[in-house]
Amino acid sequence: MAKKLLRTLAGEAVWPPPVWLMRQAGRYLPEYRAVRAQAGGFLELCTNPVLATEVSLQPLRRFGFDAAILFSDILVLPWALGQGLRYAEGEGPVLPPIRDAAGVRALQPAGLASAIAPILETVHRLRGEVGEAALIGFAGGPFTVACYMVQGSGSKEWDQVRRMAWSDPVLFAGLIDLLTEQTIVYLSAQIEAGAEAVMLFDSWAGVLAPSLFRAHVVEPTARIVAALRARHPGVPVIGFPRQAGTMLGEFVRATGVRGVGIDTAAELAMVARDLPAGVAMQGNLDPLALMAGGEAMTRESDAILAAMRGRAFIFNLGHGIVPQTPPEHVAALVARVRAA
Amino acid sequence: MAKKLLRTLAGEAVWPPPVWLMRQAGRYLPEYRAVRAQAGGFLELCTNPVLATEVSLQPLRRFGFDAAILFSDILVLPWALGQGLRYAEGEGPVLPPIRDAAGVRALQPAGLASAIAPILETVHRLRGEVGEAALIGFAGGPFTVACYMVQGSGSKEWDQVRRMAWSDPVLFAGLIDLLTEQTIVYLSAQIEAGAEAVMLFDSWAGVLAPSLFRAHVVEPTARIVAALRARHPGVPVIGFPRQAGTMLGEFVRATGVRGVGIDTAAELAMVARDLPAGVAMQGNLDPLALMAGGEAMTRESDAILAAMRGRAFIFNLGHGIVPQTPPEHVAALVARVRAA
Repeated sequence: MAKKLLRTLAGEAVWPPPVWLMRQAGRYLPEYRAVRAQAGGFLELCTNPVLATEVSLQPLRRFGFDAAILFSDILVLPWALGQGLRYAEGEGPVLPPIRDAAGVRALQPAGLASAIAPILETVHRLRGEVGEAALIGFAGGPFTVACYMVQGSGSKEWDQVRRMAWSDPVLFAGLIDLLTEQTIVYLSAQIEAGAEAVMLFDSWAGVLAPSLFRAHVVEPTARIVAALRARHPGVPVIGFPRQAGTMLGEFVRATGVRGVGIDTAAELAMVARDLPAGVAMQGNLDPLALMAGGEAMTRESDAILAAMRGRAFIFNLGHGIVPQTPPEHVAALVARVRAA
Repeated sequence: MAKKLLRTLAGEAVWPPPVWLMRQAGRYLPEYRAVRAQAGGFLELCTNPVLATEVSLQPLRRFGFDAAILFSDILVLPWALGQGLRYAEGEGPVLPPIRDAAGVRALQPAGLASAIAPILETVHRLRGEVGEAALIGFAGGPFTVACYMVQGSGSKEWDQVRRMAWSDPVLFAGLIDLLTEQTIVYLSAQIEAGAEAVMLFDSWAGVLAPSLFRAHVVEPTARIVAALRARHPGVPVIGFPRQAGTMLGEFVRATGVRGVGIDTAAELAMVARDLPAGVAMQGNLDPLALMAGGEAMTRESDAILAAMRGRAFIFNLGHGIVPQTPPEHVAALVARVRAA
């Protein structure tokens, strides 16, 4: 197991640490924008194995990252289950919201396999191309995917989702349960197609009260980790319950993830004291510090590296890279990490 | 000092605990909606002492809360400093964004006193009417106020604000410094007009990286607390750096706040272990659990009460009450807290 990222996820304090960035294949790269224009829509790009493979590899060619992540989207899952999905220009994803049992019943798990086939083909192609970089597959955390499915679009507070979780707990738990099962199927298929690690993006976990966080973030993640471990021993799962705050330690201990994404707001040294030493931490440069570049970026990334030296650590951002980021800032960051 | 809320803020474990709710004067009350319609705009309501006093008192009459909070808005401060402000129907506040030094220089601290006069008049009137309830004045935390001033509207990620903080630290620190000074003036005037405690709402503190959190949330709050303590000894400050997560303990120890608001996502018992025993905790029922009512509300509020028994604690929500909340749920909640 020579790949740096996989050694780190096995608990080794590899140094300098492996580095990749969330949304490293994205709009800040002119070569991505060119392919995106060629693909037509965003969903068309996600489901085109040739183009999705190309954009997944672009940041590796430019920056030599230690990981490639499948180019896709967390909302591919509801789309593959038959829920309508479109990406409205400038306002993000729009879905016909699920608000009752009929909406949950209308989902079609039987359609998943054929819908995700082109994505698995992308994973397969990527595995042959990534070389010394590790290939990461991913899905949304069931709660975060449910957020979009119930709310019907992005939201600051996800009030419709929390309302359903409190006032119709059986319905909401049923939706989370369905998504948990289908996420296991989906990630398992990605691993069979060639993913060497998988990451669960639970971007909105931080809006939940502790009891809901346990029911809809910790428990589903624990089930996914256990099921994948049984089917694919040795393939690590990275959890990312963004803004979990003081609940993060419990999340890590209760789920058995091998790695955990840390968001921008957390101080790594403080978080590390509450986590098992063998669990790899991943994060957490502010994407806006990367966009700003210069002294702010240097100082912040040096502080992160100093705090994490000596433990299993993957350098990353605390959230996705922003489109206005100059690519030369990314090159400077990678050089800085490599010189650590 | 007989008022329950003030005894609690002095460190006493009053039981059953005092209770009030963020945005308790608001759209969920039909009598509020009637006055709101009469006032014309939202800003017109905030600056009308007769009507603002009336809506501040309405929830006390219905529910007998242990505190009245001045009816106003955190964006009254930039408005009083001369920045344009309007409330667009359904999309929240809109301001001409400040993006450079000229924008900061255009602010007019000399105009503050006359602009806030009607708000101080509301405080003065309220003090004569609140009886055994404590009167809370408030302002936004300088960072959160700066968020709206720089972004120009609400935002999920406040990217323009974080961008300025990283790429033009002198400009951003200058804006925070100005807001810190004016917040001291504004809160000091509220105390002189009759406020018995003041609260600082730093709703967006949770988006900041630790170094920015220290510079723009912890330090300004510490300055405000120290200045108010010097001018008005014995008047407690409640801090509320929402979603501060693992940074909350440092915030409390470094600022000297007497009380701290806890957001919905945090588990009270866990947070309490990291806080000085004499600091009052305030929170943190999920507003959506209150809206749902019934068993979810009962179970969650009982868990909060059980976790906080024996320490200085103020029962509240983890965020503002939502407009769809049935008033009878609020009555049931207050009864539950009083029976603790």
